[in-house]
Amino acid sequence: MKIPEILLVESHHKPGSLAKVLQVIGDCGLVVEHLNAVRRDQDRTVWEITLEMDEDVHYGLYEKIEALPNARLLGKSDRVFNRHRGGKIRMQSRLPLATLQELRDIYTPGVARVCLAIRDNPWLAREYTYLNQSVAIITNGTAILGLGDIGPVAGMPVMEGKAALFDKFVGLSGVPILLEEKDPGKLVDIITALAPSFGAIQLEDIAAPACFEIEQALRQRLTKPVLHDDQHGTAVVTLAALMSAAKRVGRELTESVVGQIGLGSAGIGIARLLQAYGVQQVVGTDLNEEALQRLESMGGRRAELPDLMQQCDVVIACTGVRGLVRPEWVREGQIVFALSNPDAEIEPNVALARGAAYAADGKGINNALGFPGLFKGALQANATGFTDDMLFAAARCLSDLAPEDELVPDSLDPQVHAAVADAVAAAVCEPPAGQD
Amino acid sequence: MKIPEILLVESHHKPGSLAKVLQVIGDCGLVVEHLNAVRRDQDRTVWEITLEMDEDVHYGLYEKIEALPNARLLGKSDRVFNRHRGGKIRMQSRLPLATLQELRDIYTPGVARVCLAIRDNPWLAREYTYLNQSVAIITNGTAILGLGDIGPVAGMPVMEGKAALFDKFVGLSGVPILLEEKDPGKLVDIITALAPSFGAIQLEDIAAPACFEIEQALRQRLTKPVLHDDQHGTAVVTLAALMSAAKRVGRELTESVVGQIGLGSAGIGIARLLQAYGVQQVVGTDLNEEALQRLESMGGRRAELPDLMQQCDVVIACTGVRGLVRPEWVREGQIVFALSNPDAEIEPNVALARGAAYAADGKGINNALGFPGLFKGALQANATGFTDDMLFAAARCLSDLAPEDELVPDSLDPQVHAAVADAVAAAVCEPPAGQD
Repeated sequence: MKIPEILLVESHHKPGSLAKVLQVIGDCGLVVEHLNAVRRDQDRTVWEITLEMDEDVHYGLYEKIEALPNARLLGKSDRVFNRHRGGKIRMQSRLPLATLQELRDIYTPGVARVCLAIRDNPWLAREYTYLNQSVAIITNGTAILGLGDIGPVAGMPVMEGKAALFDKFVGLSGVPILLEEKDPGKLVDIITALAPSFGAIQLEDIAAPACFEIEQALRQRLTKPVLHDDQHGTAVVTLAALMSAAKRVGRELTESVVGQIGLGSAGIGIARLLQAYGVQQVVGTDLNEEALQRLESMGGRRAELPDLMQQCDVVIACTGVRGLVRPEWVREGQIVFALSNPDAEIEPNVALARGAAYAADGKGINNALGFPGLFKGALQANATGFTDDMLFAAARCLSDLAPEDELVPDSLDPQVHAAVADAVAAAVCEPPAGQD
Repeated sequence: MKIPEILLVESHHKPGSLAKVLQVIGDCGLVVEHLNAVRRDQDRTVWEITLEMDEDVHYGLYEKIEALPNARLLGKSDRVFNRHRGGKIRMQSRLPLATLQELRDIYTPGVARVCLAIRDNPWLAREYTYLNQSVAIITNGTAILGLGDIGPVAGMPVMEGKAALFDKFVGLSGVPILLEEKDPGKLVDIITALAPSFGAIQLEDIAAPACFEIEQALRQRLTKPVLHDDQHGTAVVTLAALMSAAKRVGRELTESVVGQIGLGSAGIGIARLLQAYGVQQVVGTDLNEEALQRLESMGGRRAELPDLMQQCDVVIACTGVRGLVRPEWVREGQIVFALSNPDAEIEPNVALARGAAYAADGKGINNALGFPGLFKGALQANATGFTDDMLFAAARCLSDLAPEDELVPDSLDPQVHAAVADAVAAAVCEPPAGQD
């Protein structure tokens, strides 16, 4: 898979010197993701150039830059690592703790009053502790990003990233919980035992098929919100983008034939939510027979990939396989979402060139748009769990907030997350409704 | 037990009007813990008066205040509850997350680089995640303060208080983990499974005797610092106070006969640490036969309470029973620590009046002095566990920092915690040394 690499390149202040650097990058087939001047002297500038490069491929790029007359490769930037140094999160006191009386109020002996009040009325824990503001972000490290089973500790940077987003987007306390356990039954027991520590449970990057069994069991055993983000968070944002795209091409989503390429946790989550939303025909493909049977047990049907591309009005790919979808398979007027990150199954511009009505990749349809507002809304409405109505409400809200030329809104806009939270909270109190 | 009660009393600006209020409080046998003017008008002031009152006892105080000519009871203050409202802690992002590039560095796709680096070299997790700054504060709610088994959720305010102290005193991230489980074996399995999430494990308010078995098993299974605070944190601060007291009365602590009244987690923890430090004779008493046998198996001996008081140079009580130690039992020159909070087994001034050389209660000998620096030191030195040398180092440091007229320093002084951390960290690298 592609991972970002940040080069430090010095260029002389001669006309065209930077352009030549960018040209050799382009000649290697690489796209400049970001460009930033980090130091400027009298006659030269040091640039930080962010590229996405394959781990094991040698592009010859470094030699080509070195061969340029007015540029020099200084090395690689540690910017990404520097941003992660010391961790991305910190648990902080909300109180200054500057005086003895304050200490006596919040610690012994004052804290005893609060403990006794909660013992007598457990509901008060929502008011006098951070419980109702907290979400456990739980993984066992078996499916971290597209990296596979790299273990729970190597997954920590992702969990911290989610926690940072929870804080910045909706003010919730996300707490990474890394579990050294793969047995689904034991995982359910462990998570049930630690569930009193948090207001809600986000399951994260747990491999299929164990993730399905684990989430289902936890939803039955716990009376607090549980969500496997890879299934439902991704599904909500995908549904939102589909709502937007369908609106713009004047097509009824529920009457479309939807093809799901890749039936892992994200693929199954999307297929399930679309069916619940009212999509009648879901066609799926996967290399794994068990995944295909799972889709069939849900009422979908299987097809080979080229047939699926032929039959479907909407195609959604979540396989992790770059370039899996051949350009010539794209049908005129099709909606094509190739969601694998960082490498899409087909680049959106390629699909559009082949006549797709709408095309998007995982950078646009980002699950960071979903989970913060979903959990915030569930907690603020004291929901005992997530319902499909809550997921639909989030998707509708995201679609409604999308600018004219986008399928979904900007994830860095905090108002988006607040709006999603309110929409989800409003859906908690409503009677079961199904699709609208 | 006594819990704090905060009265709001209005007094007229007449000479002696506040004095009369305080007099009726005194007449009820109550001590003013704190007094604070919250509002002052032209002719009257509203006072917040903090008392410690027994839960179920009616003192007739309210009627007596109402009967005063120039005072009025307005009600009770919610100050303690207000300070706990919304919880005392919050998980925060250390990064602003203001730009798309920042998001791409700390979340996908940049985070993949950091995950892969940790997969290839797990040690890097200490540098690029918050792991080495984090402590799980784990309870199952079976022995919260002196309140007994009130369940894990009712214990949350205490765990949040510890987390707030971790942040303010040493900048660590303390994370409350509330476990709905009482079986020691299962608790060990659960804690082992979630241990990868944190740099260290603080066990908290878990009832004896399960706490001994749980801690011992975890110390064997985990290669990270594990400490049951009620045992060892309290023991460190007690040892520090004893070092100070022994120094001042010119007595050798290791040659003193030490009596331990109450052999629960704190009592056993203190007895164990004193023995490890070199105290030859430890005498103990408890109502529980298993606790007595535990002490004997450690090389201590049992005695009835009056005999213990007669035989011992140093007496330490951790029973939770107010007034258990009769004043007439106190021996001339004895060191008497009555540590139960908030109600001491004997008030220090009473023991001193009966000839004790030093007397202290749990307000002075506060475990908030111990655990923050112990964990900070262990983590900063990458310790794989706590050793007695680390505990001794913390105790010595605290004793050395005690002002002339105190046995231990002020817990609100951040330099104290930094000094303890450094002392503990220095002891990590030293070869096993035993007592000095």
